[in-house]
Amino acid sequence: MAQLSKQDKNDALRRIAETIRQNSQLICRANRHDIQAAKQAGLSEALIDRLLLDEARIEGIARAVEEIIQLPDPVGQVLSGETMSEGMQLINVRVPLGVCGIIYEARPNVTVDAAALCLKAGNAVILKGGKEAIESNKALTRLMRQALEEVELPADCIQLIEDTSRQASIELMELRALDVLIPRGGAGLIASVVEHAKVPVIETGTGNNHLFVDATADLSQALDILINAKCQRPSVCNAIETLLVHRSIAEDFLPRVMTSMSERGVELRADEVARRVLSSAKALTQTDYATEFIDLILAVRVVDDIDQALDHIATYGTGHSEAIVTTDYDQARRFQQAVDAAAVYVNCSTRFTDGGEFGLGAEIGISTQKLHVRGPMGLVALTSNKYLISGNGQVRG
Amino acid sequence: MAQLSKQDKNDALRRIAETIRQNSQLICRANRHDIQAAKQAGLSEALIDRLLLDEARIEGIARAVEEIIQLPDPVGQVLSGETMSEGMQLINVRVPLGVCGIIYEARPNVTVDAAALCLKAGNAVILKGGKEAIESNKALTRLMRQALEEVELPADCIQLIEDTSRQASIELMELRALDVLIPRGGAGLIASVVEHAKVPVIETGTGNNHLFVDATADLSQALDILINAKCQRPSVCNAIETLLVHRSIAEDFLPRVMTSMSERGVELRADEVARRVLSSAKALTQTDYATEFIDLILAVRVVDDIDQALDHIATYGTGHSEAIVTTDYDQARRFQQAVDAAAVYVNCSTRFTDGGEFGLGAEIGISTQKLHVRGPMGLVALTSNKYLISGNGQVRG
Repeated sequence: MAQLSKQDKNDALRRIAETIRQNSQLICRANRHDIQAAKQAGLSEALIDRLLLDEARIEGIARAVEEIIQLPDPVGQVLSGETMSEGMQLINVRVPLGVCGIIYEARPNVTVDAAALCLKAGNAVILKGGKEAIESNKALTRLMRQALEEVELPADCIQLIEDTSRQASIELMELRALDVLIPRGGAGLIASVVEHAKVPVIETGTGNNHLFVDATADLSQALDILINAKCQRPSVCNAIETLLVHRSIAEDFLPRVMTSMSERGVELRADEVARRVLSSAKALTQTDYATEFIDLILAVRVVDDIDQALDHIATYGTGHSEAIVTTDYDQARRFQQAVDAAAVYVNCSTRFTDGGEFGLGAEIGISTQKLHVRGPMGLVALTSNKYLISGNGQVRG
Repeated sequence: MAQLSKQDKNDALRRIAETIRQNSQLICRANRHDIQAAKQAGLSEALIDRLLLDEARIEGIARAVEEIIQLPDPVGQVLSGETMSEGMQLINVRVPLGVCGIIYEARPNVTVDAAALCLKAGNAVILKGGKEAIESNKALTRLMRQALEEVELPADCIQLIEDTSRQASIELMELRALDVLIPRGGAGLIASVVEHAKVPVIETGTGNNHLFVDATADLSQALDILINAKCQRPSVCNAIETLLVHRSIAEDFLPRVMTSMSERGVELRADEVARRVLSSAKALTQTDYATEFIDLILAVRVVDDIDQALDHIATYGTGHSEAIVTTDYDQARRFQQAVDAAAVYVNCSTRFTDGGEFGLGAEIGISTQKLHVRGPMGLVALTSNKYLISGNGQVRG
């Protein structure tokens, strides 16, 4: 795998896209089994929608693979180099990571996205999707493996664990043969991976994010950003969960929050001070601050100043995306310096934390950890590097 | 810590170097307690030597700190940036990692090296040294903390765990408040950290390294490299442990190996084929191939070809440093491509795997893992990065 040419990898990806496109009916049939089982199990409409594949979504999956073909191949890039003082040539070159384990939840498109990104980076991948999507995942994986064989690559560089038991998940987590383990999903999954993993883990996708509206904020701008960051797609990790409002503007701003949130069906849970203005809001509990609702629910707290906002974010934030709305230069600068998160925004929406938006192309998740990769995790984060030293007899003095 | 200026950090490092230099007698006195205890406990001469501090070594420690002052400060470097399509400015900037836990063994100089590197990168550090060096480490840490207070920085950004029990080690390993845990030491320590850690770990310093002498090798060159890689400093992780010799040159080369190794007091442990020539060598066992001797012991195996050598390295290597001696261009190229290790050498000694030699300056260890940093781990590997996005009201469409 590590020694495949760029051409070979792109040919394989092209064949995967074609095979998926040509077999869309077969995929839809497999998917209907999952949908039926999901309905019988009484899963929510939102979950069933995430599970659903139709012709248009399958075309989207194939197109996403074709977009990965267009990305520059990171493998083999020379990152640095020099002639060492003893005369050897030293170069540091990008290489694949090796074997990636990816554990994810319901959405079957992740099966293809993750496999295609790993293939492009020269990695083998072991996939473990949610049990709800097992028939769809099996069909998609079978087609990808068939495509690999057609271009004479080993099918085993894309593997799906078909056993959907929890035990099978834990066995994958404990596998020392993996070079990296990437959980993609909720806090529970990530905690379980961190607990069991024996190899490096890249935590992705928990976003307990905040919007702080400062004393000097342009309140119309703040409201637009709030609506976008909370309501545009509440189920994603770059949405916000808590609104922090500076005490001095709370009376002006909160009534506008109440109107626009209630228009959009957002449930407000407010602290005592905020509830003096937000008459219809529920009283919040301490756990609300620590909860990633990923739903149309917003916690609201009035803070005395930026220090209290920074403390709140340091206490409850998950290091994903944090935003301030302010017209004060020093406060903007301070917020970006002091907040310890992957992405820190001034006067714009947290919804921009995304591989495509940040110019990295397709992503395998948003890393909330500080090592190896922080923020959107694209193709380059699926690689490592090695030093190559070429001499003619040098020994160390 | 993260917001200290370059000036502040360098002033603190300068004060640390001065304080250590001015208090060398105090440090020597503390060290004498360790040396005495080590002698009473019957530790080996080699270990006692690693533990020993004298005026010259203390001067060396102070100079090492002054060299770290000279390194460019990585914090605040802008790594990339662009104007996003919606008009926001996006920059990716280097930031400190946060709190580093470092667990190491006997040598007390690591206490100061590690603390100084962490400080320069804007990190707080929690140190846990070997119990043999506890009095020396306490003295050195007390002086460093005193220096921090003198320049009005919080002393607590350098902390030593004075409890030398195994339980205290495990508590540090399990601390979720750390951003990274770096074990520096033998395979046992590293395995224990991997077992217990709940935060990202950077494995450093296990080097089960090989020298493969190919059919077309210049045998004099091969012998020089062998002598250097095995004998110059057998206790370090970039020394080699196993010699792999191509069958076609074994009869020519092995007698020369026997002579020069026996002159240097190296014990040979050879496979059956090699023993036909190496009459005085012990028979090796399968465990020898998997053992990092870090001593004057060399395993020797005759292999049929480069494939068998590559298989051997893939099976027993720890991904640290591997070398081939050959005059065949294609074999050299193949070896560097196929071997999955931090540093892959052609026709020179593995002893060059070192932060200083590779142009990184002082190092905190040699990483044998593939994520975040591979090979010498210098100042930059003690940092993370974050995205700063500055807009004027943008929301995602």
